[in-house]
Amino acid sequence: MPEKTFKIIELCGVSEKSYAEATKNAVAKASQTLRNLDWFEVVSQRGFIQNGRVAEFQVVLKVGFRLESTTPAD
Amino acid sequence: MPEKTFKIIELCGVSEKSYAEATKNAVAKASQTLRNLDWFEVVSQRGFIQNGRVAEFQVVLKVGFRLESTTPAD
Amino acid sequence: MPEKTFKIIELCGVSEKSYAEATKNAVAKASQTLRNLDWFEVVSQRGFIQNGRVAEFQVVLKVGFRLESTTPAD
Amino acid sequence: MPEKTFKIIELCGVSEKSYAEATKNAVAKASQTLRNLDWFEVVSQRGFIQNGRVAEFQVVLKVGFRLESTTPAD
Amino acid sequence: MPEKTFKIIELCGVSEKSYAEATKNAVAKASQTLRNLDWFEVVSQRGFIQNGRVAEFQVVLKVGFRLESTTPAD
Amino acid sequence: MPEKTFKIIELCGVSEKSYAEATKNAVAKASQTLRNLDWFEVVSQRGFIQNGRVAEFQVVLKVGFRLESTTPAD
Amino acid sequence: MPEKTFKIIELCGVSEKSYAEATKNAVAKASQTLRNLDWFEVVSQRGFIQNGRVAEFQVVLKVGFRLESTTPAD
Amino acid sequence: MPEKTFKIIELCGVSEKSYAEATKNAVAKASQTLRNLDWFEVVSQRGFIQNGRVAEFQVVLKVGFRLESTTPAD
Amino acid sequence: MPEKTFKIIELCGVSEKSYAEATKNAVAKASQTLRNLDWFEVVSQRGFIQNGRVAEFQVVLKVGFRLESTTPAD
Amino acid sequence: MPEKTFKIIELCGVSEKSYAEATKNAVAKASQTLRNLDWFEVVSQRGFIQNGRVAEFQVVLKVGFRLESTTPAD
Amino acid sequence: MPEKTFKIIELCGVSEKSYAEATKNAVAKASQTLRNLDWFEVVSQRGFIQNGRVAEFQVVLKVGFRLESTTPAD
Amino acid sequence: MPEKTFKIIELCGVSEKSYAEATKNAVAKASQTLRNLDWFEVVSQRGFIQNGRVAEFQVVLKVGFRLESTTPAD
Repeated sequence: MPEKTFKIIELCGVSEKSYAEATKNAVAKASQTLRNLDWFEVVSQRGFIQNGRVAEFQVVLKVGFRLESTTPAD
Repeated sequence: MPEKTFKIIELCGVSEKSYAEATKNAVAKASQTLRNLDWFEVVSQRGFIQNGRVAEFQVVLKVGFRLESTTPAD
Repeated sequence: MPEKTFKIIELCGVSEKSYAEATKNAVAKASQTLRNLDWFEVVSQRGFIQNGRVAEFQVVLKVGFRLESTTPAD
Repeated sequence: MPEKTFKIIELCGVSEKSYAEATKNAVAKASQTLRNLDWFEVVSQRGFIQNGRVAEFQVVLKVGFRLESTTPAD
Repeated sequence: MPEKTFKIIELCGVSEKSYAEATKNAVAKASQTLRNLDWFEVVSQRGFIQNGRVAEFQVVLKVGFRLESTTPAD
Repeated sequence: MPEKTFKIIELCGVSEKSYAEATKNAVAKASQTLRNLDWFEVVSQRGFIQNGRVAEFQVVLKVGFRLESTTPAD
Repeated sequence: MPEKTFKIIELCGVSEKSYAEATKNAVAKASQTLRNLDWFEVVSQRGFIQNGRVAEFQVVLKVGFRLESTTPAD
Repeated sequence: MPEKTFKIIELCGVSEKSYAEATKNAVAKASQTLRNLDWFEVVSQRGFIQNGRVAEFQVVLKVGFRLESTTPAD
Repeated sequence: MPEKTFKIIELCGVSEKSYAEATKNAVAKASQTLRNLDWFEVVSQRGFIQNGRVAEFQVVLKVGFRLESTTPAD
Repeated sequence: MPEKTFKIIELCGVSEKSYAEATKNAVAKASQTLRNLDWFEVVSQRGFIQNGRVAEFQVVLKVGFRLESTTPAD
Repeated sequence: MPEKTFKIIELCGVSEKSYAEATKNAVAKASQTLRNLDWFEVVSQRGFIQNGRVAEFQVVLKVGFRLESTTPAD
Repeated sequence: MPEKTFKIIELCGVSEKSYAEATKNAVAKASQTLRNLDWFEVVSQRGFIQNGRVAEFQVVLKVGFRLESTTPAD
């Protein structure tokens, strides 16, 4: 088994509809510039209220991906 | 910058459908009697089971709102 | 009031769509072999990513049910 | 199922005798001015010491109650 | 020293009187069907309120016991 | 010792200068409408950034005060 | 106001009867050799089981006391 | 994707040598009676001391495994 | 509402004077190379002691900023 | 590298002015009777309120120092 | 003392043998592309199980390093 | 059963090799000056990095021991 190392970054996704969609939005954004995305975990769930109703759901995620031999660790 | 202070209350919203809807229900209820609702954060997610299926999703939220000069802090 | 005792087990449900559906799936699976399921609470929310999009939502739940006089505690 | 929302307040009860009695005292005090009290959960347990012995047990509780249609959320 | 492994289960005991009695009730129930019970630790303390007074104290416990060579791990 | 019960509310104070001043601002605001304020504890410390510098320090506090016989618990 | 500093130590008290008595026992033991004991807070509650019943309740406490000018900090 | 559900149990493994060996011992014990073991996570690490040296390392683990269609959830 | 995603990084700022100044220093450093810094939250507060006095206050912060369409997520 | 061991004690410092000063006061007190003080970390921040204003800031700290060969561990 | 700021990243190291080796592997990987690595702290310990035995130990670490004047904060 | 009380102290052990050895080193150091050491639990695991490799593993432990009738509690 060749050694492997994963990096874990923290993102906050936003959606008007649901926690699941906010999660999907953050993952989709990350995949535009990162390869090998592997897993996520929810850190916290928050949101903003405007005019007495939920204006946006926010989900803070940790997202893990495998470092390739040519990826800087930071 | 004039000083401002926010109060944070804790509510539990309920829905038969999803965590997002339970969140919306609690915020809607709060907005019936409170002004200046600004943000929420999820404290915990629970629910009841009846006849072997999820009967209600419960989301405990902290909800923050700005205290006006005439609002009692409690 | 006759004394009663509840057992709490931990399950991880999976869904392609949402955290709520992952919750429902785990409860439905548990109800195939357990009676008296009463409540659940979310322990953590995670998921896997494939090809840059969320492939599955995972919800770890504690599920509580009343022990009958003839149920082994384990 | 008509929607319902619960409010959760935090109280600290005190007793010279035990954690259970401190809990009962806080709930009894809350019930003097609030209706529909439904559940409590312990947040922390502390106390004061005088002359080398426990002078009071303090139990910080969250207490949940259902908001009626005419109850202000705060 | 022969290797040994313990299993830890989670139970919720109930009492009208105190947290200690709720603890004892859960342990007594577990001992009806499990051998080698060794230790417990409190996970959370909650309760229900009826008519403005504490109707039941609930103590969620982890209970540890040694797996015998013939005990299934689950 | 006559029984006493404390209520604990959650506030968020703001300051341009420091965490201590944000704490003082929230306590001062609370004292405009509440009597018997007794202690506080810090729940979290956050802030906003504008133009690359800290624009405001925010301190979320729990504030405890003794309920008088005529104070509603909520 | 002359400056004052408190030291906080951690003890585990034991009782056959209740969490409150285990708390009292630890405080009484500490007061045999320490002066100025001021407050305690519960860190965790555990216990041992023998022959299928609770043999001892254990309460881990933090105990705070004021350092006198002649007390070593450790 | 057919739905799947995992069960998560809690075990405490023991070793005279290291935390890693205590982990291996618990997993080996679980695999004697359970199939489909998939992952573990460390909950806590403790141990006993005898004659002034570490007598045993204890690792409390959560162990997850996939429920087969014929496996009882408990 | 166009979707937006935030990235959250973790920094440790240092000051000889106060926690607030350590916070400001970390934010100032981050703003040298990052745009759109939006909020921070305190993760932990530590420091070093030299010759019996506090030599530096250290504040570990999470700092959030909006990802522009051309910003790599990592 | 010769082996070294650190002891960590818990103190509560007090100040009328700020959290930083309360930290400094506790460290200064500890340094009167302890050598080799090395680092501190904040455990919690609290305070007392008198006449509607903050009367004292309290900072609970862990303070670490290296045990010399002649220092008792307790 | 010139001001300094540290960045903290999160990595997951893997090893077939032990938690210590998984830690070393992650640090070694990070040092291929980062300078000034200073400290690490363990966030969580997990692993995968294959054929009833531990196939890999995983250690999630925070790793801190000093930002040089020419290092982007992200 | 005669009453007994335990004291719990916090130590940080260090090793170049592993977390287990760092644990052993701290326990060995404590046993030079303390009797009746009974158990330990891991609070956190950290370490220093030098020249891009792990220079030392640090394990913060709580160590419990029974207070004899002649032991000062502090």
